[in-house]
Amino acid sequence: MSKYWSPIVSELKPYVAGEQPKITNLIKLNTNENPYGPSPKALAAIRDAADERLRLYPDPASTALRDSIARLHGVTADEVFVGNGSDEVLAHVFNGLLKHEKPLLYPDITYSFYPTYSLLYGIEAVEVPLRDDFTIDFSEFDRDCGAIIFPNPNAPTGIAVNREAIERLAASKPDTVIVIDEAYVDFGAETAIPLTRKYPNILVVHTLSKSRSLAGLRVGFAIGQRPLIDALERVKDSFNSYPLDRLAQAGAAAAMEDVDWFELCRRKVMTSRDRLVVSLERLGFEVLPSHANFVFARHPDRDGAELQAELRARSVIVRHFKKPRIDQYLRISIGTDEECDVLIEALADILARNSQLKERI
Amino acid sequence: MSKYWSPIVSELKPYVAGEQPKITNLIKLNTNENPYGPSPKALAAIRDAADERLRLYPDPASTALRDSIARLHGVTADEVFVGNGSDEVLAHVFNGLLKHEKPLLYPDITYSFYPTYSLLYGIEAVEVPLRDDFTIDFSEFDRDCGAIIFPNPNAPTGIAVNREAIERLAASKPDTVIVIDEAYVDFGAETAIPLTRKYPNILVVHTLSKSRSLAGLRVGFAIGQRPLIDALERVKDSFNSYPLDRLAQAGAAAAMEDVDWFELCRRKVMTSRDRLVVSLERLGFEVLPSHANFVFARHPDRDGAELQAELRARSVIVRHFKKPRIDQYLRISIGTDEECDVLIEALADILARNSQLKERI
Repeated sequence: MSKYWSPIVSELKPYVAGEQPKITNLIKLNTNENPYGPSPKALAAIRDAADERLRLYPDPASTALRDSIARLHGVTADEVFVGNGSDEVLAHVFNGLLKHEKPLLYPDITYSFYPTYSLLYGIEAVEVPLRDDFTIDFSEFDRDCGAIIFPNPNAPTGIAVNREAIERLAASKPDTVIVIDEAYVDFGAETAIPLTRKYPNILVVHTLSKSRSLAGLRVGFAIGQRPLIDALERVKDSFNSYPLDRLAQAGAAAAMEDVDWFELCRRKVMTSRDRLVVSLERLGFEVLPSHANFVFARHPDRDGAELQAELRARSVIVRHFKKPRIDQYLRISIGTDEECDVLIEALADILARNSQLKERI
Repeated sequence: MSKYWSPIVSELKPYVAGEQPKITNLIKLNTNENPYGPSPKALAAIRDAADERLRLYPDPASTALRDSIARLHGVTADEVFVGNGSDEVLAHVFNGLLKHEKPLLYPDITYSFYPTYSLLYGIEAVEVPLRDDFTIDFSEFDRDCGAIIFPNPNAPTGIAVNREAIERLAASKPDTVIVIDEAYVDFGAETAIPLTRKYPNILVVHTLSKSRSLAGLRVGFAIGQRPLIDALERVKDSFNSYPLDRLAQAGAAAAMEDVDWFELCRRKVMTSRDRLVVSLERLGFEVLPSHANFVFARHPDRDGAELQAELRARSVIVRHFKKPRIDQYLRISIGTDEECDVLIEALADILARNSQLKERI
C-alpha cells in the first residue's frame, strides 16, 4: 500500500494464472493449452506480416479478422468484437455490460477471474451454488439480478449445458444480459452463437487460445447483436485503440480460415480425453464428465494438493485450486497420448507407493 | 444507448485515433509513425518466435523484455512495467495511480486520450492552460491536486521541457504522483528516467511505437520505483494476465537491444525535421519548436482544416484537431526527406493557387 495508489488498488485481488515454468522437460498439463501447434497457415501469415510494415499502426478495428470470424459463424462483422485474448474481452464485458444496480450472478465454482473483474469494476456479484454433482442449477438464476455470466463448458469442472437450457434462460429474462463464456466449447459442447440471432440479450465469448492453439498470440472475440458490441467498442476505444497488433490480426484470421486444421486438432484432443478418462478411472479416480480440453478428477484416497505436489516432483504439472468444494480435485489438461501416458504412469507409481506405505503401517 | 449497457458506457467519450487508411499510395504523415522500418534484428526475432510454441501462453511477466529495458535504462527489471502499447500502460496508470480525492491536472492542450481515460475511470480532471506560446506554465501546477500528468515533449505541440523543471516540480510536490508521458522523448528531449532513482513520485511512460518503429507491435512501458510499479501490476493482473503476446515480447526485446539501429533512425528523423521546418518557414508557416517526430504548424493566411482537406485531395494526409486554440494548426509527422518534399510541393501548390485566387478577386 502506498500513498500514491488510487484507492481501488489496495482492494484488488489480482488473478493468479497457472504457472508458466521456464524449465523445460516438464509435462505441462496445467493451463489447458492445446498439445498440437497452431495452423501452419497461421504461422505463415505471421511470418509474412513480420516486415517493415510493423512501423505502421495496425487496423484499430481488426477488420479482416472480424470478417473471418463473422463468415465462419454466420454473422456480420459488426456483430463481432475482438480483443487481446478473451481475458481482455471479458474485462470490457464486465465493465460495459455486467455492471448494473442489481447484482451480477455467476456460479460459485467457475473461472476464477470473474471475482477479480468484479472487484476491479466495483460490481456486486452473487455466487449461485452449483448442485452437488457440479451441474448448473438454472433455477438458481431465477432471482432479481442485473446480469448473468457462466462458462460453457464450465471451468474448472468441464461440465457443459445444452443450448436449450441457455435459450430458456434468455427467453425468461429478456431484460438481463447473459454472457456465455465459451473458451472450451469446441471440445464437444454446443455453442450458443446461433441464439444471438434471436436473443438481443445473449453475448458469446470465444478464445483462440485453446481450440486454435494460439494461447501465445492473445486473441479472443465476442459475438452478439449491435447494442452489445457497440458497448464493448465504446469501452475499448476509451481504453486502447489498437488492442491487436499486426501479427495477431494476421495470424488469427488465417487460423480461423483453416477449418481443416482446427477440426483435426480438436478431434485428436477429444479422442485423447476419452482415453485419459478410461485410464484415470482404472486408477480409481472419479472424473467429472468433460466437454473441455481438460478433465477434473479426484481420487477418493488421496489429497488433491498432495497428488499435485507428487506429480510435480515427477515433472508433471497439473492445476490444483485451494478452494472450498474443489480442493480435492486436480484439473488436468489433455496433452498428447504420450503425455497422458506419462501422467498415468506417474499417478500409478504414486498410488502404488501409497498402498505399500499403508500396508506397512 | 441500450438497457443492457452498464451506466458508464453512455458517459464515455471514446478516443478517435488518426486515420489508418486502407488505400495505398498516400503520403501518410498523420499518426507519427517512424518512416524507417523496425530493427532487422527485431523482425528476425519475431520470425524465430513464430512457431509451434505459439500454442503456449506467453510469459505473463514479460521477464526477458523487462530485463532488456532495465539494462538499457539503468534500473532493475522490477522497476519496469510493460503493456500492450503505451495506451494500455496509460490506462492502467490512470486507474491505479491518477485517481484520488483531489483532481488530476494536465495541460489544456495535450494528448487527447487523457480526457477519455478520465471519463472511463471517473477521475475529476482539471485542465491547466498552456501559455500563449504553448509552453507549460509550471506555476499552474502549484495548486491542490491528487496527481499530474503531461507528455514531454507535449503532444500535439512538440514542445519539450527540461529535466530541471520536472525535478523542481517533483521536489515541490512529494506527495503527488507525477507521470511524464515520454512517447516522443527520443527525438531530442531529455528523459526524466534518471529522476525516478531519487523521486518516488515520478513515473515515466515510453512507447516502442515511435523511436523503435514498432507501432504495429503494440508495446509500451513505464519506469518508476516499486510502489508505483506494484500498483500497475496489481491493476494489470486484475485485467489481463498476458497483455503481451510471444511475438511482441520477442520483437520488443530485440528492438531495445539494437541500439545502433535506434540511434541511426532517430537521428535521420531529427535531421529531416530540421530540413522540413526550414521549408515550411519558407512557405510562410509558423512552426512551433519541436523535439518530437512531428511538427505543429500554421499558416497565417490559410485555415487549418481547409489546408488539411486540400492536402488530402493531393494524397498527403496530416492531422488536424478541431479544438479551441489549435484549430488553425496542422500536425505533420516527419516522413522521409522524399515524403517531406512531396508535402512541401503540395503546400506550395495550394498556397500559389490561393494567391492567384486572391489576385483575381
